[in-house]
Amino acid sequence: MSDQRIVRPTPISGFPEWSPQIRAVEQQWLDHIRAGFESFGFASIETPSVENLETLMAKGETSQEVYTLHRLQADGKDDSDARLGLHFDLTVPFARYVAQHFNELTFPFKRYQMQRVWRGERPQEGRFREFTQCDIDVIDVDSVPLHFDAELPRIIHRVLSGLDIPAWTLSVNNRKVLQGFYEGVGIKDPIVVIRAVDKLHKIGDDGVREILLADGLTGEQIDACLRLARVKDTGAAVADQVRALGVESELLEEGLTELAFVLNDLSDLPEGSVVADLSIARGLDYYTGTVYEASFDDDPEYGSICAGGRYENLAGQFIRRKLPGVGLSIGLTRIFAKLVAEGRITEGRMCPTDVMVVVPGADSRTDALRTGELLRSRGFDTEVFHSTAKIGKQLQYASKKGIPFVWFPPFDEDGNHEVKDMGTGEQGAADPRTWSPHNTQGQNSG
Amino acid sequence: MSDQRIVRPTPISGFPEWSPQIRAVEQQWLDHIRAGFESFGFASIETPSVENLETLMAKGETSQEVYTLHRLQADGKDDSDARLGLHFDLTVPFARYVAQHFNELTFPFKRYQMQRVWRGERPQEGRFREFTQCDIDVIDVDSVPLHFDAELPRIIHRVLSGLDIPAWTLSVNNRKVLQGFYEGVGIKDPIVVIRAVDKLHKIGDDGVREILLADGLTGEQIDACLRLARVKDTGAAVADQVRALGVESELLEEGLTELAFVLNDLSDLPEGSVVADLSIARGLDYYTGTVYEASFDDDPEYGSICAGGRYENLAGQFIRRKLPGVGLSIGLTRIFAKLVAEGRITEGRMCPTDVMVVVPGADSRTDALRTGELLRSRGFDTEVFHSTAKIGKQLQYASKKGIPFVWFPPFDEDGNHEVKDMGTGEQGAADPRTWSPHNTQGQNSG
Repeated sequence: MSDQRIVRPTPISGFPEWSPQIRAVEQQWLDHIRAGFESFGFASIETPSVENLETLMAKGETSQEVYTLHRLQADGKDDSDARLGLHFDLTVPFARYVAQHFNELTFPFKRYQMQRVWRGERPQEGRFREFTQCDIDVIDVDSVPLHFDAELPRIIHRVLSGLDIPAWTLSVNNRKVLQGFYEGVGIKDPIVVIRAVDKLHKIGDDGVREILLADGLTGEQIDACLRLARVKDTGAAVADQVRALGVESELLEEGLTELAFVLNDLSDLPEGSVVADLSIARGLDYYTGTVYEASFDDDPEYGSICAGGRYENLAGQFIRRKLPGVGLSIGLTRIFAKLVAEGRITEGRMCPTDVMVVVPGADSRTDALRTGELLRSRGFDTEVFHSTAKIGKQLQYASKKGIPFVWFPPFDEDGNHEVKDMGTGEQGAADPRTWSPHNTQGQNSG
Repeated sequence: MSDQRIVRPTPISGFPEWSPQIRAVEQQWLDHIRAGFESFGFASIETPSVENLETLMAKGETSQEVYTLHRLQADGKDDSDARLGLHFDLTVPFARYVAQHFNELTFPFKRYQMQRVWRGERPQEGRFREFTQCDIDVIDVDSVPLHFDAELPRIIHRVLSGLDIPAWTLSVNNRKVLQGFYEGVGIKDPIVVIRAVDKLHKIGDDGVREILLADGLTGEQIDACLRLARVKDTGAAVADQVRALGVESELLEEGLTELAFVLNDLSDLPEGSVVADLSIARGLDYYTGTVYEASFDDDPEYGSICAGGRYENLAGQFIRRKLPGVGLSIGLTRIFAKLVAEGRITEGRMCPTDVMVVVPGADSRTDALRTGELLRSRGFDTEVFHSTAKIGKQLQYASKKGIPFVWFPPFDEDGNHEVKDMGTGEQGAADPRTWSPHNTQGQNSG
């Protein structure tokens, strides 16, 4: 061994990895999110980690830093892999999936997708090269009911409320409101303003003013845009606040009606869970109606932890059908890794074990194994100790691993066994056929 | 839209993708396997999809076709990604993980890992470029108790028995038996024989004989090797069968004792679940004791669906500690995709929805949403219909999606509601605060 060269492993920047205790919490989060998505009837899909480069680039976006795959030992006979890239989000693969499986699906198609995605970025705080996204989208043929614009924030509320994370706010806006308002004050190219307003929280009023002046807007137009961006309300009354700004257009009115519908539908949620915030723009071109963005109240600078919106026709590059949709994506790794780094995740247990069965000697091994199987069949995650080490050593292992109950002989068939509660130190008689953690007949021997 | 170029999506060879109905079954399988692993107290870990190429190549294996990552838009300033490759199994990442996190772990470290892996192979039946492996391993410092050599087949038995798959057999052997036996008949380089015997099922006795003759073995030695490979038994008596061949060596005796221990420990499992098969060699050099291989009884040609064994020091390249282990890997995609291709997977439901709440008109929307929340809070996955379409159309949607129960007004607060069992057509009164699928008060109106 000593003559062998040691390749000392080091973490790879941008590719998070957790200890078993942290991974246990991540797994709980994933289970919780999945259960939340399914509780609204959304179906799971997964797509391959790779797409053809043509698919990844179909939206015309080349700004994403795509990882392409190459074979280390290419044999020269097959270069098909050179056209493959790791997906950088789950939206493009979803659009491709719907187009490809169009005839097999029932619409509206309600799906969730929880997978790793990759971006070849230079790593920085809160940015990862590999991370998990939890996406939920509805896609339909020709049009998508507004029902879903309101249902998605309800789902996100249910999901995020159940995670032990710092306070957050989900903001809602509507691109028709922005576009209609901008057009109403005589702006020719609303998307320029949308992109500028999207930066408002980072660069402030003055920064936005500078950009828009350079784009040729009048001071009056800019003032109107900034006034709109200041509108914020927790209820459907937000529409009246916007109308009070005195700008009129058909599109604006349409957007306000949609926004009010969404807020009205969500009025049963706790006050402040969902807020209309007219400064939320979302930079991406493909949003056409409702847009969403959630961030931490105590760290808005960290940026969005969950975002999405309504799009008119995301799969148009793949199929000659109009397939509009609305979706939201939770940046699981963005949230989780931040809290890990800040020490705000309470570590889970080192192992799932509920009960450890001691093995006092080789002659009790068969009985111990049988007891283990019996406890497992009753739903308890059970370890049978892996040797006939001294009982003290076996208990030490259970204690170190945080196993809550240790099982003792006699392992007789009539159920005459003993169990020790490692938390309280109590030990008492227990029948493996009927025992539960709540009916341990404690006799304090600790 | 019509002037847009359509990039018609096609499946990418070697990268499987499922419909929602098939994905639902895959998800059940994954849940079941995970529960099986956890029922023995194994902890979950995940590692990044990539490793440094140095890590991937540390075992000296270059035969694996590794996918390396490259950035599509490399800016020339950071070529660190060029040293990254997608992992081709979960064993190498696990060994690296244990070495890297050595001081944080409690030994014996019992972990499972269920992740995608990638191999840049030319696709062929049963081979994938991206596939999911479900690995379970125990790693320990200096030595690993033999307990685990017997526990792993028990876990695999529990896991595979719970899946709706064709009959399979888990074969066990011990490399010490092979090596000791070969040495006992005077063979200098047992690994050559191990590699030849590993091909026995494919090339037959004559093929093995040819290889070994070319390697300089005598006819007598080859006959002995082939006699050993024919030994097969379901119980610990296999040791006596081997001893009856009249070959003696210390290592052989050690191996037979280990093999008998494993078989004896598993004697409570149904007859034939685990079989000692002395022709099982496993080609990989790093196995040093127990080896495992499972295949389908009706299609042994398909090769192993689950395999593994004991290794002496897999992490020796990463840390100056001896860290032996024993592990098994289930080729989930290999099994699942084969059964999908053969039409042997019974499709799951199109969506997880238990109940769909109808929305007869805009004025009952709030009540319908409240009812949906109430049913969800009671654990039922519930869709509230997404529009106020005619009831017939709403029922049609529920029927098409296979939703088992449809909920009807009046949605009054006193629980005066109605529910229809879509399977039987029965419809009757139901209180959303107490209803369960089993207490539907049926009044046949179907």
